[in-house]
Amino acid sequence: MPIEHSPFSKAEYDRRISQTRTAMAAAGIDVLFVTDPSNQAWLTGYDGWSFYVHQGVVLDLDRDPHWWGRMQDANGARRTVWMNDERVLGYADQYIQSRTCHPMEDLAGHLRAMGFERSRVGVEMENYYYSAKAHAVLAAELPNAVLVDATALVNWQRGVKSHEEMEFIRKAARISESIVRVALETAEPGLRKNELVAEIARASLIGVNDAWGDYPAIVPLTPSGIDATAPHLTWNGNKMKKGEITFFELSGCYRRYHAPLCRSLFLGRPPQNMLDVSEALADGLEAGLEAARAGNRACDIANALNSELTKAGIDRDERCGYAVGLSYPPDWGERTVSLRSTDETVLLPGMTFHFMPGLWLEEWGLETTETIVIAEDGPAEALCNVERKLFVKA
Amino acid sequence: MPIEHSPFSKAEYDRRISQTRTAMAAAGIDVLFVTDPSNQAWLTGYDGWSFYVHQGVVLDLDRDPHWWGRMQDANGARRTVWMNDERVLGYADQYIQSRTCHPMEDLAGHLRAMGFERSRVGVEMENYYYSAKAHAVLAAELPNAVLVDATALVNWQRGVKSHEEMEFIRKAARISESIVRVALETAEPGLRKNELVAEIARASLIGVNDAWGDYPAIVPLTPSGIDATAPHLTWNGNKMKKGEITFFELSGCYRRYHAPLCRSLFLGRPPQNMLDVSEALADGLEAGLEAARAGNRACDIANALNSELTKAGIDRDERCGYAVGLSYPPDWGERTVSLRSTDETVLLPGMTFHFMPGLWLEEWGLETTETIVIAEDGPAEALCNVERKLFVKA
Repeated sequence: MPIEHSPFSKAEYDRRISQTRTAMAAAGIDVLFVTDPSNQAWLTGYDGWSFYVHQGVVLDLDRDPHWWGRMQDANGARRTVWMNDERVLGYADQYIQSRTCHPMEDLAGHLRAMGFERSRVGVEMENYYYSAKAHAVLAAELPNAVLVDATALVNWQRGVKSHEEMEFIRKAARISESIVRVALETAEPGLRKNELVAEIARASLIGVNDAWGDYPAIVPLTPSGIDATAPHLTWNGNKMKKGEITFFELSGCYRRYHAPLCRSLFLGRPPQNMLDVSEALADGLEAGLEAARAGNRACDIANALNSELTKAGIDRDERCGYAVGLSYPPDWGERTVSLRSTDETVLLPGMTFHFMPGLWLEEWGLETTETIVIAEDGPAEALCNVERKLFVKA
Repeated sequence: MPIEHSPFSKAEYDRRISQTRTAMAAAGIDVLFVTDPSNQAWLTGYDGWSFYVHQGVVLDLDRDPHWWGRMQDANGARRTVWMNDERVLGYADQYIQSRTCHPMEDLAGHLRAMGFERSRVGVEMENYYYSAKAHAVLAAELPNAVLVDATALVNWQRGVKSHEEMEFIRKAARISESIVRVALETAEPGLRKNELVAEIARASLIGVNDAWGDYPAIVPLTPSGIDATAPHLTWNGNKMKKGEITFFELSGCYRRYHAPLCRSLFLGRPPQNMLDVSEALADGLEAGLEAARAGNRACDIANALNSELTKAGIDRDERCGYAVGLSYPPDWGERTVSLRSTDETVLLPGMTFHFMPGLWLEEWGLETTETIVIAEDGPAEALCNVERKLFVKA
């Protein structure tokens, strides 16, 4: 793909590759096999729904990376990566979901041919797309290499967003605002939940102006009433009811970048304790934003939130957020920093988080959240502009 | 969850558990740890977008299965599985994406407490949701157990669909017809591709009558022109153009069951060779359906197709389909039977396949496909009813 069609400048990709190489060198890694689709896209621009078969990026310390995957997906790679066509490697279709051979046999052949037979090879041990079997086959095929756990090595390089990346995230935030408003406006007693989600999905793909909608890495979560005691139930065909709270856990997506945003809606007149909890949560978010300053730590955000929640008698011990940005299903998080009392990661300007203190209680649940960016000075900026409250439709 | 709210009867779950135990016994497995979300749902009914963290089903040879996962998702499990609440096990939030501990430490503790410290434990080595790291931790935590590769052991039990399952797949097929028609009707020169996909997504969630739309395991694939030379590129904000072919790779989904259906559309007047290729493909599908009979083998379908394609000068060596049914992202296939010349699986009545001979050529691509069910007698039945041809909008 000519770089002029690429989402990012060549300078941006150069920065990413260079940062990653520094981390590789520090970890004593000669060559890195990157399976996380987000990391593949971040390093090379590769984009396609082909991560259900084995594929990855091979990056060493000096040459342009290779993209390696199924032969039929090599066409898609040639159309999306910034490298020259000869850096795209395809393996034969017979390896797909076979009971007699495995794609890692093909990859190992390439690694040997590239001179990495006795090298330290970094692999992402904890990743959806690097199976236990893939690891076993690669290890058996490269008996003289050392496979080094490089889980999240690239993910950590993605924490501080560049100016180019922030433009994408801000576009995603415009879409997030739009779809949360659609959800709030469309929801009403008698509406089937799948019909509500249909309008949310439509709006998320229409996007906002030039920000066309890409698919978010998680589907809309919109449980009501007792179903909202669980954070991850998806919708069904039941009708929305008066007297129930519904939370909307949504994200716009622009070119794979996310800015998740959650709000909650009560149909009817909410009980006072629900309003009180919502207010305590808004106070906690405000306190967390104040604490989310460059130089502070991830745990400071969590502690600031929890101190407000404790005042209101709410004991919440789950993590309350995570790094966010470029992602593919099944998770829009970056799987690096967690906002929780045990995470002492120092906050840097340009880091983006989904500050996500969802409350899943005994009989109902409530979510009010923000995607935030750490500023050079002062408190973090919330990227979306939707009032922080429990919405009510009488 | 009371069984009356469950998608399936208790007898249906009993059948599934019993079949799986027979396969476990044959493989010498004492206890099976099931990570594939489709297998979890098939065995227990568990349904939720929580598969981005470690979770699974523990099944032994005599007791009701356990569902094990993140504490906050235990609420969702209690609302979706058929087992009693005490069969739902939750682990603490501190294990989530941690750098110091791993959820498999918790699972190993349960397996030891259940008496499986020295047992043969089946694990799905080749699965998106069983990482290399998960396997390494489990193996270290259970040094006296034998971890046996049980990849696809449950998937193979899912091949022949029950009457209850076929009802779901037929509902998905109604949705597939509806969304392919929406795509064909909506597409026109000047329409931005994301706007087309927005209408497809909306229709897929609205569903058809009582068949409310669930999320398909793959997003709509709708590439045009040169992008259609690659099978898995997703959409962007570019406008559709006269003189280009677009393929629609879509599936309706009803309660996680799929019936994929692909058709192609030319805007303008298609070149003769494109019409010829489309006709050869329709002939190939017809020949494949004829060969798709109980007692024949999977390869017979592929060979029948390829023999028609070869007559038309088309040399196609990718697999031309796969088993399909219940699934979660990132793949709607069952990852068992592949329709290709090397797969000698004997076809049984009730098996369902996506017969998918996509053509991704030098300058364009074309897809006409069917979801089929193997009949008791005679050729396979195509579940959707949309004409098999290249659609044209002048």
